[in-house]
Amino acid sequence: MGRRLDTVSTPARLAGPGEGIGADELALATRNHGLPLEALRYDITPPGLHYVLTHYDIPYVADDRSWRLSIGGRVRRTLDLDVAALRTFPQVTARVTMECAGNGRALLTPRPVSQPWLVEAVGTAEWTGVPLRLLLAEAGPAPDAVDVVFTGADHGVERGVEQDYQRALPVSVALGGEPEVLVAHTMNGAPLPPQHGRPLRLVVPGWYGMAHVKWLRDVTVSAEPFTGFQHTVAYRLRERAEDPGEPVTRIAPRALLVPPGFPDFMSRRRVVRPGPVTVHGRAWSGRAPVTAVEVSTDGGQSWRTARLDAADGHRWAWRGWRHTWTAAPGSYVLVARATDAEGHSQPLDQPWNRGGFANNLVQRVPVECVAGSPGEAT
Amino acid sequence: MGRRLDTVSTPARLAGPGEGIGADELALATRNHGLPLEALRYDITPPGLHYVLTHYDIPYVADDRSWRLSIGGRVRRTLDLDVAALRTFPQVTARVTMECAGNGRALLTPRPVSQPWLVEAVGTAEWTGVPLRLLLAEAGPAPDAVDVVFTGADHGVERGVEQDYQRALPVSVALGGEPEVLVAHTMNGAPLPPQHGRPLRLVVPGWYGMAHVKWLRDVTVSAEPFTGFQHTVAYRLRERAEDPGEPVTRIAPRALLVPPGFPDFMSRRRVVRPGPVTVHGRAWSGRAPVTAVEVSTDGGQSWRTARLDAADGHRWAWRGWRHTWTAAPGSYVLVARATDAEGHSQPLDQPWNRGGFANNLVQRVPVECVAGSPGEAT
Repeated sequence: MGRRLDTVSTPARLAGPGEGIGADELALATRNHGLPLEALRYDITPPGLHYVLTHYDIPYVADDRSWRLSIGGRVRRTLDLDVAALRTFPQVTARVTMECAGNGRALLTPRPVSQPWLVEAVGTAEWTGVPLRLLLAEAGPAPDAVDVVFTGADHGVERGVEQDYQRALPVSVALGGEPEVLVAHTMNGAPLPPQHGRPLRLVVPGWYGMAHVKWLRDVTVSAEPFTGFQHTVAYRLRERAEDPGEPVTRIAPRALLVPPGFPDFMSRRRVVRPGPVTVHGRAWSGRAPVTAVEVSTDGGQSWRTARLDAADGHRWAWRGWRHTWTAAPGSYVLVARATDAEGHSQPLDQPWNRGGFANNLVQRVPVECVAGSPGEAT
Repeated sequence: MGRRLDTVSTPARLAGPGEGIGADELALATRNHGLPLEALRYDITPPGLHYVLTHYDIPYVADDRSWRLSIGGRVRRTLDLDVAALRTFPQVTARVTMECAGNGRALLTPRPVSQPWLVEAVGTAEWTGVPLRLLLAEAGPAPDAVDVVFTGADHGVERGVEQDYQRALPVSVALGGEPEVLVAHTMNGAPLPPQHGRPLRLVVPGWYGMAHVKWLRDVTVSAEPFTGFQHTVAYRLRERAEDPGEPVTRIAPRALLVPPGFPDFMSRRRVVRPGPVTVHGRAWSGRAPVTAVEVSTDGGQSWRTARLDAADGHRWAWRGWRHTWTAAPGSYVLVARATDAEGHSQPLDQPWNRGGFANNLVQRVPVECVAGSPGEAT
């Protein structure tokens, strides 16, 4: 934990009834960004369209070659590795769908005041790096190891606590093979962009984004449970401020659809032409494979089963689905709902907690079906 | 101009006193994004950090090879070119700072309701492509040509008008050599990312972003002044709704500074340690070269002259500047102000128009200087 520095922080709070997005939330929304939903079309999210959330500033790294990753704590021997040394270990590439734990927050009532995501804080990339378990095997964790703590280079203040961004994983997860945690240096075949952790980040397939520590510079094996800010204060599921809460871990199931037709610039409302409309999108769950996606065009009153794309062997990435809707003039609300192999399904009513975390309320897409001009091709 | 389609649009409006950012503005802010200001450190903005504004949806192009650019209208012969054919013309690479015409809009009082930028809608890239004047020379514009109209593939509705995004340039600008307008296929040495216009976009150095038509598919030389939506309705400087207004064209001068020290997550307030602090950033103007940057640490009451980086020959890109400030414990507001060779300087009071366009009010960065713990390395 860091020092206290209360002068620049405001307390965690919920927005009042009807309260618009504030200057602080807007400052986060203009820095960070989601996936424009039409980009759900790509299996692998193109550079710059993957969601990004930066807690503090993006560290400036003038030369990747000077970066060091230290692995220490309760280990037989401490490792001090540069990126070139990491590349001498066996390399793994994994296709991973990553989602921010706060996705959907700005749609909640009352709204937790923080990064104001709607539903778009997601992306899929191919990450290449070294399995963490191989690095830990080289270091030799002590038998009493409990947690593995990851420290990034991004430095800031949060609710009065000055800190480097830190998260931990239970040692069983850190050493696990499914999912296999990576120390990644490459995203989609290129060095990590600065905003995605250049030169090194953790990738924890199936877990929400807060676990994938960016700008990774230290891995410390600990015999004590980690009690840092991002575990005990932030990223907990709490109904009331005084609850101890449960930690945020794996991604709850979610389906998103590509909004069909074309939009209005300001309202983002969609227009489709009468006739067959392919409603398609992606679905994922960090808990168990997605087994079903259902689609509604009447706001969730009736449902049809969508066709899932063939399984492609990428367990930790989203899965495509599609459904043909025959649109007639009128107003509609499209909804999609994912279910995973453990029977988790998306709720139609908001799940709520004070942080707005792990909230997988179904997406609702209002659509107007309007006839085009005679003879018009669209 | 397109057909009327009023059912999905809302009228242009100004936010009421104290009105927070609305759901429509937030939906734009989560799709589009600015440059995180710490990324002003890079001469060339890394992929994914350059600002992006998409009016409608990002078109999906399955195969660049099938893309066609047609050049026609009042010309001797119509051209129909694919990307490979464009690459047989002489190629030019230009370093260009691009800024959204609406940058700064969300800081205005009253606030025009649209994409709610603070100050970060900017970025610098190296664009490679064919000078437009060479393509037009090949087509042979008629002597009575007045405007050249550029049509993108992005389709949507704006204030009830269904349209493909279209903008025009006076024929003298389209044929000009300084700035030299490009039809670009490459950004920073790689094919354009989808959100920056893949596979082709216009680049108009020195002009606000609305002129740099993305997903360019048609160039039409016209003997009549262009009267499309994005010229006669949007992108005009108007005090009152009924004014005809002046068109938005070249970029007004602006300086931005890298917020020093480290931030609070939620308030984005900055903390620096006592002692020398390098205040640095970038400055640009599309009207004339930047000739001076001044820095204030007291909110604009007193000013020091910053040192400009050596001119690097990139007339249409931003210029670096720096100033050393000796910080003592206390509260400060940092401000930077650019002046160009035509004597344009940034205002300390807001310039206002109904669209919030070309607004180059100075940036204000509140900073707390707080002593660190004894012996602490920062």
